[in-house]
Amino acid sequence: MLKVIAPTVNGPVTMPIRPPVFDPPFNVVRASHVELGVRDLACARAFYVDCLGLLVSDETADALYLRGVEERNHHSIVLKQVREAKAHALGFKLAGEDDLDRATSWFARRNLPVSFPSVPHQGRTLRTADIFGTPIELYATMDQAPSMLQKYASHQGARIQRIDHLNCFTPDVQASYDFYSELGFRLTEYSETDGDDPKLWAVWLQRKGNVHDIAFTNGFGPRLHHVGLWTSGILDIIHVCDVMATSGYLANMERGPGRHGISNAFFLYVRDPDGHRVELFTSDYLAVDPDHAPIRWSLTDPQRQTLWGQPAPASWFEEGSVFSCIVPRQPVLTAQPIVAP
Amino acid sequence: MLKVIAPTVNGPVTMPIRPPVFDPPFNVVRASHVELGVRDLACARAFYVDCLGLLVSDETADALYLRGVEERNHHSIVLKQVREAKAHALGFKLAGEDDLDRATSWFARRNLPVSFPSVPHQGRTLRTADIFGTPIELYATMDQAPSMLQKYASHQGARIQRIDHLNCFTPDVQASYDFYSELGFRLTEYSETDGDDPKLWAVWLQRKGNVHDIAFTNGFGPRLHHVGLWTSGILDIIHVCDVMATSGYLANMERGPGRHGISNAFFLYVRDPDGHRVELFTSDYLAVDPDHAPIRWSLTDPQRQTLWGQPAPASWFEEGSVFSCIVPRQPVLTAQPIVAP
Amino acid sequence: MLKVIAPTVNGPVTMPIRPPVFDPPFNVVRASHVELGVRDLACARAFYVDCLGLLVSDETADALYLRGVEERNHHSIVLKQVREAKAHALGFKLAGEDDLDRATSWFARRNLPVSFPSVPHQGRTLRTADIFGTPIELYATMDQAPSMLQKYASHQGARIQRIDHLNCFTPDVQASYDFYSELGFRLTEYSETDGDDPKLWAVWLQRKGNVHDIAFTNGFGPRLHHVGLWTSGILDIIHVCDVMATSGYLANMERGPGRHGISNAFFLYVRDPDGHRVELFTSDYLAVDPDHAPIRWSLTDPQRQTLWGQPAPASWFEEGSVFSCIVPRQPVLTAQPIVAP
Amino acid sequence: MLKVIAPTVNGPVTMPIRPPVFDPPFNVVRASHVELGVRDLACARAFYVDCLGLLVSDETADALYLRGVEERNHHSIVLKQVREAKAHALGFKLAGEDDLDRATSWFARRNLPVSFPSVPHQGRTLRTADIFGTPIELYATMDQAPSMLQKYASHQGARIQRIDHLNCFTPDVQASYDFYSELGFRLTEYSETDGDDPKLWAVWLQRKGNVHDIAFTNGFGPRLHHVGLWTSGILDIIHVCDVMATSGYLANMERGPGRHGISNAFFLYVRDPDGHRVELFTSDYLAVDPDHAPIRWSLTDPQRQTLWGQPAPASWFEEGSVFSCIVPRQPVLTAQPIVAP
Repeated sequence: MLKVIAPTVNGPVTMPIRPPVFDPPFNVVRASHVELGVRDLACARAFYVDCLGLLVSDETADALYLRGVEERNHHSIVLKQVREAKAHALGFKLAGEDDLDRATSWFARRNLPVSFPSVPHQGRTLRTADIFGTPIELYATMDQAPSMLQKYASHQGARIQRIDHLNCFTPDVQASYDFYSELGFRLTEYSETDGDDPKLWAVWLQRKGNVHDIAFTNGFGPRLHHVGLWTSGILDIIHVCDVMATSGYLANMERGPGRHGISNAFFLYVRDPDGHRVELFTSDYLAVDPDHAPIRWSLTDPQRQTLWGQPAPASWFEEGSVFSCIVPRQPVLTAQPIVAP
Repeated sequence: MLKVIAPTVNGPVTMPIRPPVFDPPFNVVRASHVELGVRDLACARAFYVDCLGLLVSDETADALYLRGVEERNHHSIVLKQVREAKAHALGFKLAGEDDLDRATSWFARRNLPVSFPSVPHQGRTLRTADIFGTPIELYATMDQAPSMLQKYASHQGARIQRIDHLNCFTPDVQASYDFYSELGFRLTEYSETDGDDPKLWAVWLQRKGNVHDIAFTNGFGPRLHHVGLWTSGILDIIHVCDVMATSGYLANMERGPGRHGISNAFFLYVRDPDGHRVELFTSDYLAVDPDHAPIRWSLTDPQRQTLWGQPAPASWFEEGSVFSCIVPRQPVLTAQPIVAP
Repeated sequence: MLKVIAPTVNGPVTMPIRPPVFDPPFNVVRASHVELGVRDLACARAFYVDCLGLLVSDETADALYLRGVEERNHHSIVLKQVREAKAHALGFKLAGEDDLDRATSWFARRNLPVSFPSVPHQGRTLRTADIFGTPIELYATMDQAPSMLQKYASHQGARIQRIDHLNCFTPDVQASYDFYSELGFRLTEYSETDGDDPKLWAVWLQRKGNVHDIAFTNGFGPRLHHVGLWTSGILDIIHVCDVMATSGYLANMERGPGRHGISNAFFLYVRDPDGHRVELFTSDYLAVDPDHAPIRWSLTDPQRQTLWGQPAPASWFEEGSVFSCIVPRQPVLTAQPIVAP
Repeated sequence: MLKVIAPTVNGPVTMPIRPPVFDPPFNVVRASHVELGVRDLACARAFYVDCLGLLVSDETADALYLRGVEERNHHSIVLKQVREAKAHALGFKLAGEDDLDRATSWFARRNLPVSFPSVPHQGRTLRTADIFGTPIELYATMDQAPSMLQKYASHQGARIQRIDHLNCFTPDVQASYDFYSELGFRLTEYSETDGDDPKLWAVWLQRKGNVHDIAFTNGFGPRLHHVGLWTSGILDIIHVCDVMATSGYLANMERGPGRHGISNAFFLYVRDPDGHRVELFTSDYLAVDPDHAPIRWSLTDPQRQTLWGQPAPASWFEEGSVFSCIVPRQPVLTAQPIVAP
């Protein structure tokens, strides 16, 4: 009989968590890109390229396609010049065209929107939405660009290597969790309220084998909380703090640098010129094992948010990017975490 | 029509590479552990625990079970006190007990050895071998230990986070590649000889989504070349250089620190008191995408081995741990890479 | 005629700064140690040795002598078990015994206290005080201990290399500045109030060639604000954050990690079990040139305190260690910097 | 009576070392710059500025003035376009104009050359030479440039902060040591031959308070071995390895990265396009105390050169930059250290 020495870091699993789905209806490889609307493409370029250090894969009159230095996929951030700065789509890569067919059927059966717009640099792309209307793009192939990982002279700013995850507010964490779990997303960490009838307050879900591809937090939603970009080391993040603070982006530094209890990530949260939030992060862990037990955090544990103790600013809990065409609604749960005074 | 801007970093794929198998006969999650024979357990403990910083999960009169700070699996290195220091087994985790059943049938059908020894701290464990006799352990469940990732006061030495991969000499790289490809291992990088009829000289194969779970190099084999242990950052490796050099382990430092061209890993190769080779490494990349094209390296490109140019010492190419019960044989290919004079 | 391209980083020098004294009455080499009273030596030992990583040079029933890994001087922090936790003395090393004679005459001429107590591990030691009664120890020789810089296996916690500086509240920054300037301490950075009649609000003064050996801030004083300990790199400080936050010292983390505008230091402020404040810091600069112009900061510039923008907590501005036998008084200036809400 | 617990790291001082001169004839502040002849200024600019990351203070048709990001002195490296790439001068900053007068008398009394050429961006400059003809520039004031330390967006390559030291071959280490000691340079570390009659083989001498401003090694000389440039951290040096190796400068990487036993420096030696050697280094220690005992290394101790054991390549021991107008001669000592096979 196998012995579980300590099932989770922070106490026993108490909550209504579904077992992981290892045979999902279609195979999602990972969160792979996000499309954001910006009001001034030149300003956005200065921020993402000159300051943060993303590489330009393509540039048109009204769009900018960006990627990190290790990325082969043509783009992980797409910026579109628009009049209102909203989040346009969350992109997930599927394993193959067959998966795309299965996904189409699956979403259609649930009466969720299904269309196939032409998307530059991507193969056949399914445009759909989750149960709360969050716009989603699914596809299996994208133009391949050269890895610049060993073109070190091209690394700038935070030397961002790749997109890692997407983080959203949802009006109902349990419902979002149930939806994405059914698609094979696996829970790695979660926070919940205390008491006899605990409620899910936030979940971290993964497909690619580390802590998350997508995360959901209780709040006015659906809205995009942030896109997470991965750097190779902590000092890359410290350096971009120094650069931002001394080149006109001091006000864009929202939170950190610090260490999350959840995910163990070393983080910095910044806001782009349109207010979209970007997390630069590193130092999480491998979670590929099927028997990897999720870690529970109490909503009242301040080290959940910041291992080193500093509470997050109120803006971090309250502000996010509205998705185009979807009106957010108030969340089910009214419980709130501790914020900075 | 999708455009491939640059198929690989180092030129077009020219070689007889099988397409990836996305529907393997059973689901291997990752390389998860290795068992090594050592002649003096106390000496080995001083090296692996006090110097390198691995954690002790269990200790008996003749065995030591070790893991890295993020690992939940009970052990990733097992040391057994024996009279001759050989490598005993390569361990791979399967996704579930069903996979273990399918694996058993698969190996039996090929007339490869099949047995189910009792292995401490592991669930049902299949003992088998690959086509060259390399001893393999397959299992789906292991005792779970507490993650020590956020018990920072317990981190010592190189603050090793987890096992990453196993690297072996094989007498026939093409044959080993064919065998493991059929099991769903996917090629990320390879080196081959130049000319009109290129031959595979080394392959890096993965299941968990980064550069490798197992790698094979042309040579007197099968033998274990090294076990690769992952650290969070480069300075953890620099620190263990300083520690080893000033605490009696100078002669155990074989190669590095340096940067591999292949895998982009920042590496240090050390030899344990019995001569088993350990690589401390960090800084590779995500390779989870099904369309992730493998990178080709010419055997005559010195940056393949060390991006910064220093050739590896001859011992690094020649020495390795013999597996118990298997007599190695000379390799098919006689081509040799450049070594330090 | 020599051209000064930019005299200081932050605008012209406007203030009543005395020219540097290059021929001081006696030669102070550097700030070299501090003696602190603690109520529980075992608790203090756990904090300074086990957590921060200082080395023990000597230990008696009621005293603990500590040093950093590169230090040859026997001690840089002396902890004495007492009933009230106060700061006992600031220690400065002189160049030779002749300097000690000259110092004795100089202090005696100014009617400042002069005595020669026996101090363990130190040569002839002059006990005196500055104009506000701050207790000072001057000496030229101390027992020499082995450098542990290349005994890397002994490095723990923040791997502290050496003491760097002492920082005090003073009721009159201008008066403290005048006193220490006369002794040859040179100004590297300062903050002052704005307006037509600017007043010195804080000064950083050095003897050893980097940013400071002693600093004074306007406040209820004299009190010790903190002792500054130098680490080789930023990640040593990040690591001790992780260690403190997960080993019972979360409440001892007062401010940071962050980057000071002043001095460019990467910093972390922690409080020992008795409330004495310690700064772990790195990344300042060389200031040995006689024509090195001091940098002026406006008291209203928030990047003065934290380049990245976060204001310091109120405790950081208000709390400090009272010196034994001296009653602090209110400062001359009432101007206050911005603090965290 | 004071106790010396351990006088040096590596055994007792056995050699004919002069006591430090604390009252030198004139006050040298530090090694401050070097002037090098290069055959192609554009090539040199690409190397020093675009690759290594030095800042351009001034640029003329035949000269380039460079400095590190923390430097206020106008230049620390001057490159002059010439037909033969030699080293032109070693520059030392004096404390004041009075010191320059005293230096002029001192060199004149010894019949060493004395002249006052006009040097751009420098105040009154004495051109002279040491006993072996090494060309030296002494001056007290230089144009002051803005510190770019907190202009982080301008930091590139190795983010070099400042010049640290100059290292030369000399035909007679004892004679060079005697000469510079008389000028107040203090010994921090040295290597010598073993046996009953040990001879000085190399010396590290300082004025500014860390390990060295100038060093001398036994060899065909006088020649410049290298100019040492200081970086804030180890990862700045690792990054420039990656940049050089992947942007056409692989052949310019001569030795390292590694850790010296002597000085504890983390180092990388590179050769500029004309063959002049540059050391990027960090991690030494403070040596400002007058009673700081020098560390002795035996010439036969391989960790003297590289703590981690790798011998230096022969070129590192044999090659150097000839000074203009001075013909080098063979050294007094024939003892040789261990080199890479």
